[in-house]
Amino acid sequence: MTTSIAIQPLVQRQAQQGVITLTLNSPKSFNALSEEMLEALQAALDEVAQDEDARCVVLAAQGKAFCAGHDLKQMRANPDKTYYQALFARCGQVMQAIVNLPVPVIARVQGIATAAGCQLVASCDLAVAARSARFAVSGINVGLFCSTPAVALSRNVSRKRAMEMLMTGEFISADQACEWGLVNRVAEEDGLDATVAEFTTSICAKSAVAIRTGKAMFARQLAMPLEDAYVFAGETMACNMLADDAAEGIDAFMAKRAPQWKHR
Amino acid sequence: MTTSIAIQPLVQRQAQQGVITLTLNSPKSFNALSEEMLEALQAALDEVAQDEDARCVVLAAQGKAFCAGHDLKQMRANPDKTYYQALFARCGQVMQAIVNLPVPVIARVQGIATAAGCQLVASCDLAVAARSARFAVSGINVGLFCSTPAVALSRNVSRKRAMEMLMTGEFISADQACEWGLVNRVAEEDGLDATVAEFTTSICAKSAVAIRTGKAMFARQLAMPLEDAYVFAGETMACNMLADDAAEGIDAFMAKRAPQWKHR
Amino acid sequence: MTTSIAIQPLVQRQAQQGVITLTLNSPKSFNALSEEMLEALQAALDEVAQDEDARCVVLAAQGKAFCAGHDLKQMRANPDKTYYQALFARCGQVMQAIVNLPVPVIARVQGIATAAGCQLVASCDLAVAARSARFAVSGINVGLFCSTPAVALSRNVSRKRAMEMLMTGEFISADQACEWGLVNRVAEEDGLDATVAEFTTSICAKSAVAIRTGKAMFARQLAMPLEDAYVFAGETMACNMLADDAAEGIDAFMAKRAPQWKHR
Repeated sequence: MTTSIAIQPLVQRQAQQGVITLTLNSPKSFNALSEEMLEALQAALDEVAQDEDARCVVLAAQGKAFCAGHDLKQMRANPDKTYYQALFARCGQVMQAIVNLPVPVIARVQGIATAAGCQLVASCDLAVAARSARFAVSGINVGLFCSTPAVALSRNVSRKRAMEMLMTGEFISADQACEWGLVNRVAEEDGLDATVAEFTTSICAKSAVAIRTGKAMFARQLAMPLEDAYVFAGETMACNMLADDAAEGIDAFMAKRAPQWKHR
Repeated sequence: MTTSIAIQPLVQRQAQQGVITLTLNSPKSFNALSEEMLEALQAALDEVAQDEDARCVVLAAQGKAFCAGHDLKQMRANPDKTYYQALFARCGQVMQAIVNLPVPVIARVQGIATAAGCQLVASCDLAVAARSARFAVSGINVGLFCSTPAVALSRNVSRKRAMEMLMTGEFISADQACEWGLVNRVAEEDGLDATVAEFTTSICAKSAVAIRTGKAMFARQLAMPLEDAYVFAGETMACNMLADDAAEGIDAFMAKRAPQWKHR
Repeated sequence: MTTSIAIQPLVQRQAQQGVITLTLNSPKSFNALSEEMLEALQAALDEVAQDEDARCVVLAAQGKAFCAGHDLKQMRANPDKTYYQALFARCGQVMQAIVNLPVPVIARVQGIATAAGCQLVASCDLAVAARSARFAVSGINVGLFCSTPAVALSRNVSRKRAMEMLMTGEFISADQACEWGLVNRVAEEDGLDATVAEFTTSICAKSAVAIRTGKAMFARQLAMPLEDAYVFAGETMACNMLADDAAEGIDAFMAKRAPQWKHR
């Protein structure tokens, strides 16, 4: 069953069997993260967070570019510290909303992903890039170091590679991004959707409660000292074992049959 | 001099010139980490921790598989939260016992290393895999997200790669594991022991006090802020310099002769 | 305009259009980090920290080797815990002075970079290595585990790779170092300076205030939890937007002309 909204909002939403595709829809601005776009994306993510049928999110974009970062024209039109503080705070909230969403988020990247656009990719759980996609944190080229993108980027790729991208502002290829850990897969242009679908199909075939359990624990345990992480993860796993799906999954595995998830 | 125990316990122990080989010995269960196996492994690690002659540990496994993770049948036979909490706590203690052991631990991996079996490999200091070995955190396939394995895995490989393995449950090859940093070396099947021996021989040729110093400081400093890590590491290194072996090692180096370690 | 000091100090300083080249100048000792060398390097870094015209630093070395680590002969001549504590504290301060310098530091590596020499490379923001350069944390070979080098190394390469280098003391090639993230670029011997110049030229073409902003925020945010990092980075970026260069950079970008930086 497919539902889609006919009007063309800044973020399009399509839901198909639990896969929510959110599509940045301002191709003329290279999907710049204007105030309005950030607001629309936050609203769309908030809706997913409340959607018990959501299984995973694909973050996609219309047009030639995935996302070119902040809307520079709008920023220059508001030369005010309070404005900038609010803007970057809002942007940081959107990025953290992706990290804290109850379901995994997969970036589907074509064209360029620059500055906060590259940060979006880094903030997702998984990412698939078209072979011709390119990534940069290019704020330095306009005198504005990509400080908030650096937060996400430096948690995806190693220090010297992050620093190189941030200091030079230069593009890296999709293959380089894959080698460095910024994206999981590189696909030919005509195979991009199929490669994204491999991830969504795999995730949708799993128990929803188990996927949500994992998404909720992953980033949190990574921020903890090892001993605390084990206490937290052990408790999480004990709770997971009490869910119907774990009982069914293990019984099915031992009986060599396919599991019938309750939480699907 | 070789000593070995004739009875076949769940964890076999063989000691040869300071190299303690602990071999998971339940090949029919793919060396599942049952309560009994965890207890036997903990006991074997505790014994090594007290063994002043131990130089390093090889963690090996009998049969086709390295380790297939928890014993699912046993888990299902005890559908009780207190039981699961105790089980995952015990498992976390075994993994941390490897991290906190006074000597380095080298995983010797053949066949599959899945779920808590993959966690074992991630918890070791070094790992050598047979070319045909495969790695997965596959709990998600049975409705049980690999939360405790995620703790170790996400401290070995980058975020998106860890998340991909955890969310899809799919296997990666030994070569992929090596490229991602989960194992140090891939060897042909008939060269697996020789490659492990390169590491043990190298470690045994070093000063025991220096190796123990390094093992004790590595994980601890990595959890500290940079400034604290330097204070701790500087103090550690000053103490190391006062050991006879450092004096002998440096004198031998300057005299271009082989060192004669006291702590061997 | 080029200025250089005619006398041959332990650390040579050359400044050319904001690029400060600091050259370790004790080729006979393989540029060992003696007390005197550490003092000279600290003084040179302190001077750069005060130099408002500095844009970036190239850390280079005279002779066949980049740096062979501590001066073992001097260390053995002072067999005293207080001496060692002071020595490693001083060394840690030099390394942190690189991390905390207001401008980026690029290592230019030929020959060997061992022990604290490898730590120097790891402590720099960027690194370029000659194809024949080799890296090791080889203290373990003389009975002295490279504890302080481990601090920097383990923040550059993944755990099992760091542990392998630390426990075996073996060399890795420049290509391996590049693959593992310890260096950014490998150049043929006769192209080493040109490759370093690509980085310095790129950095010098940027706004000085933006580069300094980025250097100051990068390591600091990486040590913070995600939420705190975003608060800090957002505030940093709001301040950066108020600098003249960001306004000029964005205006120039929108007008498709080259920016004229004020802070250059």
